[in-house]
Amino acid sequence: MKPVPNPSDAGNQRKKAIVVGAGPVGALAALALAKRGWFVEVYEGRPDIRLPSSKARTEQRSINLAISHRGIAALEAIEPAAASRFLESAIPMRGRMIHKLSGALDSQPYDRDGQCINSIDRALLNEGLLHQVAESPNINLFFNHRVTGVDFDGKTIAIRDSLSGKDFTTRFNLCIGADGSYSIIRRQMMRVVRMNYQQEYIRDEYLELKMPAGRDHAGQPTFLLDPNHLHIWPRHSFMLIALPNKDKTFTCTLFAPTAELDRLCSADSILTWFKSYFPDALRLIGENSLLEDFKRNPKSPLICTKANPYHYKDRAIILGDAAHSMVPFYGQGLNAGLEDVRVLMTLLDQEGVSSTLSTSDSRKDYDRHLDNALQRYTDTRHEDLIAISDLAMNNYVEMRHSVTQLSYLFRKTMDNLLYSLTSPRMASLASLTPKLATLPYPTGEVRGWLPLYTMVTFRPDINYAAVKKRAARQATILTGLSWIGVGLCGVAGAWLLWAARAATLHLLA
Amino acid sequence: MKPVPNPSDAGNQRKKAIVVGAGPVGALAALALAKRGWFVEVYEGRPDIRLPSSKARTEQRSINLAISHRGIAALEAIEPAAASRFLESAIPMRGRMIHKLSGALDSQPYDRDGQCINSIDRALLNEGLLHQVAESPNINLFFNHRVTGVDFDGKTIAIRDSLSGKDFTTRFNLCIGADGSYSIIRRQMMRVVRMNYQQEYIRDEYLELKMPAGRDHAGQPTFLLDPNHLHIWPRHSFMLIALPNKDKTFTCTLFAPTAELDRLCSADSILTWFKSYFPDALRLIGENSLLEDFKRNPKSPLICTKANPYHYKDRAIILGDAAHSMVPFYGQGLNAGLEDVRVLMTLLDQEGVSSTLSTSDSRKDYDRHLDNALQRYTDTRHEDLIAISDLAMNNYVEMRHSVTQLSYLFRKTMDNLLYSLTSPRMASLASLTPKLATLPYPTGEVRGWLPLYTMVTFRPDINYAAVKKRAARQATILTGLSWIGVGLCGVAGAWLLWAARAATLHLLA
Repeated sequence: MKPVPNPSDAGNQRKKAIVVGAGPVGALAALALAKRGWFVEVYEGRPDIRLPSSKARTEQRSINLAISHRGIAALEAIEPAAASRFLESAIPMRGRMIHKLSGALDSQPYDRDGQCINSIDRALLNEGLLHQVAESPNINLFFNHRVTGVDFDGKTIAIRDSLSGKDFTTRFNLCIGADGSYSIIRRQMMRVVRMNYQQEYIRDEYLELKMPAGRDHAGQPTFLLDPNHLHIWPRHSFMLIALPNKDKTFTCTLFAPTAELDRLCSADSILTWFKSYFPDALRLIGENSLLEDFKRNPKSPLICTKANPYHYKDRAIILGDAAHSMVPFYGQGLNAGLEDVRVLMTLLDQEGVSSTLSTSDSRKDYDRHLDNALQRYTDTRHEDLIAISDLAMNNYVEMRHSVTQLSYLFRKTMDNLLYSLTSPRMASLASLTPKLATLPYPTGEVRGWLPLYTMVTFRPDINYAAVKKRAARQATILTGLSWIGVGLCGVAGAWLLWAARAATLHLLA
Repeated sequence: MKPVPNPSDAGNQRKKAIVVGAGPVGALAALALAKRGWFVEVYEGRPDIRLPSSKARTEQRSINLAISHRGIAALEAIEPAAASRFLESAIPMRGRMIHKLSGALDSQPYDRDGQCINSIDRALLNEGLLHQVAESPNINLFFNHRVTGVDFDGKTIAIRDSLSGKDFTTRFNLCIGADGSYSIIRRQMMRVVRMNYQQEYIRDEYLELKMPAGRDHAGQPTFLLDPNHLHIWPRHSFMLIALPNKDKTFTCTLFAPTAELDRLCSADSILTWFKSYFPDALRLIGENSLLEDFKRNPKSPLICTKANPYHYKDRAIILGDAAHSMVPFYGQGLNAGLEDVRVLMTLLDQEGVSSTLSTSDSRKDYDRHLDNALQRYTDTRHEDLIAISDLAMNNYVEMRHSVTQLSYLFRKTMDNLLYSLTSPRMASLASLTPKLATLPYPTGEVRGWLPLYTMVTFRPDINYAAVKKRAARQATILTGLSWIGVGLCGVAGAWLLWAARAATLHLLA
């Protein structure tokens, strides 16, 4: 254990942060504070995922994620070297591949300029960040340590080492809850903060299935589907999706209403259902593998949580899923969580929060700068997080239903046309980076038509709330244009009919 | 302690219910089950409010309530003798008394037929029910006993006796959570049920103030305001209300935005503010008493919670504030909670839930009838509880603002006129009672125009959801009639002007 002093020790002036949860958001927050000179202790209730023995446990969770520009921008702002390493181990996905019931395929690129999202192994990303954490001289990392209580007014946290059964208490200046949807820190904060809070289970559940790698002529493993797409089998009230893994397999996820999944209770019913709705996927997954996964893997609920405020005075804040767990249909859950860290750090820097206790601060046991920064975080971040949570919910209908509709394809074509006509080519993520250090974002500088997906996924310089408002305005225009299109088609059709009738009469005359 | 056997004892076939919380809702639920032959244990975390030493503690809470027909109907269905005793100790309030800033008064009756709501001491109601509970041979009542955990699958509950510090576990067939807004049973259920849950603090807080009794010529205590009204000082963004007590005092409650109350931090600012907005109330309360209450009484938040489902399988349910704490502006919080008990008991009776374990039931450890009843409770009750929660929120604007507006008074006059023209006189609450035993309610039988307040407060035979829908339809009609009224006034005005002009010209000719 590194010599991280207790902040109450006389003579030591550096501040101590406790981060609860060693997932990607917690690890990144710890790294960001350590870089700013804080002493950090990270407490994680589960075992160390870097140990081979615990691999099996993590594999039960969603194992690949779509990381996009917001997540990457946050990683680059805090750990630039790590960010590029992660991208090397990720598989770029340039668009959606729609699998129709007939077996026909339809590739829908995500972006005109070839920007892509990245399929990445959740464990790999987490392990990479934990390696950085372990190397930092300012961070101590504890696994199998559960929080049993927090005294926010006394700035102490009670921890139980679940291996030894030992209980202890430690002091903090700042406590960060990055402990997921069922956050203990959030529950503890709700005792002292008048927190508005909402949790909602949607009618659907999800189940993970594995699609194995194929073999090429030389016997080497090979992808059974195009690896540079996110594959979707939209079936209106339910859907199957598949993301590529580095080992040439795909992780498939079935999203369906609980009532629909409950009917699939026998091998016969499962196979019949798959043959009706996903015959091509069934061939690639294999009947035995499918039945095995149905038996072994849990059917998990999808929960959406919202909270406000996110902080308590100058001493506690929740980030990531602890503050806003959302449905996964925009692939933004983790991206938003990593962005939380970047936004918080920008505010700490802007407010001039120091990592040392000035003598007067320590006498008052109060940090005005930190208080301001956390208050500004709640004030500025809430509308953004509600916006992306709502957008994620709306995107489920798009993915499982709209993508197959003619009206959707017409609107998408118009959307892309207006984008081409009004917006210059986006150079790269790096070109946006200088803007990100300023908060609130200089959104006035964003001009031209930008499709919703592009803004959410590839434009971290536009906050989610601004994205949602801009998209609503654009949607109104698209609806208007669609009606004009319908009108023009009607006029053209009538003219054609009239001309055909006239020509026929002329020929018969 | 009465000989209540453990349901696991061989040879004993009676079911055991645990009720957590000994407030009015918990006490009524315990009485209702005991009457149906169940063994009941009631656990309350606080001390016995019937003991003189704990009086002071309860007085910090809201001490008087407006009980109306739904609450009375529930009491009468379960404890008819108690219901009439409570009504004797209540003070009927026949309408609102609006106190304008000028000091002018405006009495607005609640109901054409003289139906009234009743101001009752919360402690008195609670104590009365607890006396009944204590007398029941089937109920054991424990104070200073806190729930520390529930194993719903094992049907056991862990309790700590906070006086002795002793922990123990006991079995149940049915666990009822009636433990208020911050319910432990609800939190425990959220671990096993996918419960949608929402809590929202509104922008306002409340503070209780005491208006003393006056003295008549003979030196006897006397009311300083008309005791048969609920007094309101509506001031648009905030308000003061007053309810009469048996000792001739009034309990006043100030509702105001937190920011507004925070400004009142000195004696000067408090008195100046009261002199500007409530000069008449200030005279009656007295400056010293007002300042004393401001110093001593807490500024309490107003929380609105919503949950769904309310039950878990055949073994647990939450009632009252534990399931739906609402803002107090319709005076329906406790009424709805007592109605919860009546509705649940009606469903238990309809489903033929027995208080004894049949041999096969006990083998299966499962009660299909109970399961059906609890499921039907969640299915039928949710829409009602959301409706009254929303109506209560809307009524705040009516009480603090609309009651002073001309448009409101015009609509209210029309509302009452249509009521008089279409609906016969309501005989009494007793005349509705036979209908209440049937669920779903025979709402088809309700005819004619009924003002919203009348339906919510005086018609327990119309469920809250139906009330809300009916009120929305009536509001649309009222809006239409208002426009017709405006049109007719315009025409009449124009005709008068024309006639006046013509007469003038004729006279001058």
